[in-house]
Amino acid sequence: MNLTCAHRSTTTFFGMLPSAKDRTQPTVVFIFGGSGDLNYRKLTPALYNLYIDGFLPERFAVAGIGRSEYTNEAFRERLQGGIAEFSRRKEGPWDEFAPKISYLKMDVADDASYAQITKLVQTCQTDWGVEPNVLFYLAVAPQLVPGIATNLSKLSFCHNHERVRMVVEKPFGHDLASAHELNVLLGGLFAEEQIYRIDHYLGKETVQNILALRFANALFEPLFNRNYVAEVQITAAETVGLEGRGGYYESSGALRDMIQNHLLQLLCMVAMDAPTSFNANEVRNKKVDVLNAIRPISPNEVDQVAVRGQYGSGTVKNKPVPAYRDEEGVANDSQTETFAAVKFMVDNWRWYDVPFYLRTGKALTEKMTSITIQFKEAPKLAFPAEVTAESWGSNRLTINIQPAMDIRLSFQAKRPGQVLDLDPVEMVFSFKGAYEGQEPEAYETLLLDVMLGDATLFMRADQVEAAWRAVTPILEHWEGHKLAELPTYAPGSWGPDAAHELLTKDGFVWQ
Amino acid sequence: MNLTCAHRSTTTFFGMLPSAKDRTQPTVVFIFGGSGDLNYRKLTPALYNLYIDGFLPERFAVAGIGRSEYTNEAFRERLQGGIAEFSRRKEGPWDEFAPKISYLKMDVADDASYAQITKLVQTCQTDWGVEPNVLFYLAVAPQLVPGIATNLSKLSFCHNHERVRMVVEKPFGHDLASAHELNVLLGGLFAEEQIYRIDHYLGKETVQNILALRFANALFEPLFNRNYVAEVQITAAETVGLEGRGGYYESSGALRDMIQNHLLQLLCMVAMDAPTSFNANEVRNKKVDVLNAIRPISPNEVDQVAVRGQYGSGTVKNKPVPAYRDEEGVANDSQTETFAAVKFMVDNWRWYDVPFYLRTGKALTEKMTSITIQFKEAPKLAFPAEVTAESWGSNRLTINIQPAMDIRLSFQAKRPGQVLDLDPVEMVFSFKGAYEGQEPEAYETLLLDVMLGDATLFMRADQVEAAWRAVTPILEHWEGHKLAELPTYAPGSWGPDAAHELLTKDGFVWQ
Repeated sequence: MNLTCAHRSTTTFFGMLPSAKDRTQPTVVFIFGGSGDLNYRKLTPALYNLYIDGFLPERFAVAGIGRSEYTNEAFRERLQGGIAEFSRRKEGPWDEFAPKISYLKMDVADDASYAQITKLVQTCQTDWGVEPNVLFYLAVAPQLVPGIATNLSKLSFCHNHERVRMVVEKPFGHDLASAHELNVLLGGLFAEEQIYRIDHYLGKETVQNILALRFANALFEPLFNRNYVAEVQITAAETVGLEGRGGYYESSGALRDMIQNHLLQLLCMVAMDAPTSFNANEVRNKKVDVLNAIRPISPNEVDQVAVRGQYGSGTVKNKPVPAYRDEEGVANDSQTETFAAVKFMVDNWRWYDVPFYLRTGKALTEKMTSITIQFKEAPKLAFPAEVTAESWGSNRLTINIQPAMDIRLSFQAKRPGQVLDLDPVEMVFSFKGAYEGQEPEAYETLLLDVMLGDATLFMRADQVEAAWRAVTPILEHWEGHKLAELPTYAPGSWGPDAAHELLTKDGFVWQ
Repeated sequence: MNLTCAHRSTTTFFGMLPSAKDRTQPTVVFIFGGSGDLNYRKLTPALYNLYIDGFLPERFAVAGIGRSEYTNEAFRERLQGGIAEFSRRKEGPWDEFAPKISYLKMDVADDASYAQITKLVQTCQTDWGVEPNVLFYLAVAPQLVPGIATNLSKLSFCHNHERVRMVVEKPFGHDLASAHELNVLLGGLFAEEQIYRIDHYLGKETVQNILALRFANALFEPLFNRNYVAEVQITAAETVGLEGRGGYYESSGALRDMIQNHLLQLLCMVAMDAPTSFNANEVRNKKVDVLNAIRPISPNEVDQVAVRGQYGSGTVKNKPVPAYRDEEGVANDSQTETFAAVKFMVDNWRWYDVPFYLRTGKALTEKMTSITIQFKEAPKLAFPAEVTAESWGSNRLTINIQPAMDIRLSFQAKRPGQVLDLDPVEMVFSFKGAYEGQEPEAYETLLLDVMLGDATLFMRADQVEAAWRAVTPILEHWEGHKLAELPTYAPGSWGPDAAHELLTKDGFVWQ
């Protein structure tokens, strides 16, 4: 860990020091895939908002790298379009920011072309009079990552562990073996603390708030264990279907695309033990402890704990949705699941016997990401049978990640009046209501963290592999047992019937 | 316990069965103090609302008893004025209800005049063809209670423990000795289950909800103990001063008028163990357990745990308030406290070492009754010192009884943004918001309970005496140590400075 990190490690919290504005060092950012969608929609808007908020260092440059032909001016103009369309702030000092952007046309497979990178770094160093930090953002197809990383490792300045960092986008591997292989490759070229495996879910404000909720409060933590929790549900639902992402998705599927990374990370945040500090490795140790405690699923129980499905044709919110198999780039006998639900057990003292149900899917009823902690029922023997039979509900803590951003506590209250009725009621804290418009985008948070050298919210090699290990038995079983027909579900539903049975056979229902 | 009670005891919950509407028996209610204020403002409006809601039995009669001269018509007209002024419903079938009301002019000291009561009961019995239940409501000055009870006990039908009940208003005794004496007297004349010592605070919806909150939910109960609670505050504040109640208040004071009864009862509801049923005696056993566990205050520590004060002249909310000693009926060297704050300790396994701070007063800043459960701080070592120093607050559950009717959970959340700030935020459940206008008045609830024979919300003899026992050392010390000048406080303040010191010396502050 570099000096900056070491100094900060005792006082960081998700990388955000009160004094974060003063902490970023002169930096050059290189975005591989600079002319691509992620930069257009997310990365440049995030950098621009960080700039407006004063988080970027005064000495800052960003270069897009791509195969297309752009002048600097044309490239800036293109990105300005991304700001207009996707930035949370459209207005601002764009003319001040734009000159920091340049474009490098490169063939990333040709190591000679990397000299342009060295040259830009040297120019900045000369202009600024200090050695800059360098950040490589690999927003490229996964098959390009090994080549780019190999070529970058040949640049001598890249071995400065303190100043050079690399962000690797998902998917990180296609399975455990390929993820391991990639880790070994990258680990041979760079130090682990230089590698930032990004999971943008972890940059979301409501996700970060899970740790604040759990560990800055005395109220919740005593209840977060098997003594009080009956089950946990984590749902990430989309209403849209494939929408042209056929090529990638067809070889991935819901389990790889969402559960292996985002949803298992949310599970870790709900289930992890309290870190002794918010030091990056300490937090990641506590999270990987959870992944390592996940009960291995044996091949013959996969069908009991995991459900897959594929949407047919229909409508979602009155919009027609073609069947998955009719989408472009999808085989007409595709076995790729667009819906997956898995029951995981975390075999440690805190969570033994408490099921964690994860589900995700495309073309579902509602767009929402949400965590529900369902508490065990209170002993109800003191209450009249009439009351407990009809109006009894147990307690629930709901953390809505998106698009709603709120925390809800469901409990029982007595309905006013002379007749006894217990009503389930809710207490709500709405982040949106309290802080309308103040929340940064996930990529802002994460890009700033990389610049600050804080890896707390990024995947360490062992985390990625532990997460792959958790889903591997399901992947293998599903690949080994192709079905003539995958269970289909109607667009606008909550997935195949089997997803409901996954819970009902345990006595629960999806919330 | 009478048969009806015995049958109901396994299924009641604060006396309110779903089927309560079918359970009231033909009843004659006699209100001693019929021409008085309580009947005018509270009792008749409550009975009228119960009638509108269909909770009164079809065969029902109510007779006001007083020394004044009224025809039935004139009496009904008077009470109609009370409905217009104080009923939560002004409209309604008054003409249908009014004929059920009659008036008996009686000298309550003259036992011959009680024949009128017997006569009315007999008339009802003849008219209705069944033996009615009879309810005596003693809304009279406390010195009249023994005489009335003695005379009533001479009526032969009053020995029917199942059908005849008596409601005794506060104050129940002036101190432990007089309360005990009254209990002995009443206990010699009637069975304990016939005697309903009323504390109207316990009829309030938000107070009843404390038990629902605690025992119908799995979320709160695990936290309600010394492991998690730092301290509990119970405040009942009034903005008004004496307003003409001089005679009674001057001989009573804040400790007797509020703390011995209402506030200690709220303490019991917060601190009691879970009852195994909502049977009246089971609930009252659990409550009296708390009172019996209150650490006796030794005479030489009274000044450390109890604060008294008297308001001077000033203004509350821009209205001039004369000094207490300038009020009519108050001695100009009065020692009566208009403010009292007491720290009680409950010496049992659940609450050992957790202070319960109770305070009440007249002419204070705000009219409100509220309970605050302050939780211990979370261990904050994982957080940066800058964060914990400035923005750290601990968790709090606030139950607002009146005029606000809500439950608030205060906790820490991360303020959105790249700069770390923890903000104290609130989740709120508002009874008013959820059930606007649906809540019955406390007297409705309590009168119906008496009619149903459910004594859960009423004081048993041993409860009253245990509560007196808890405050006796303070009463005796204060009476034995008259001060030349009581600590005074400005109207519109939160009481004398010593009330604040009572908490600050323990490291807490009033919320």
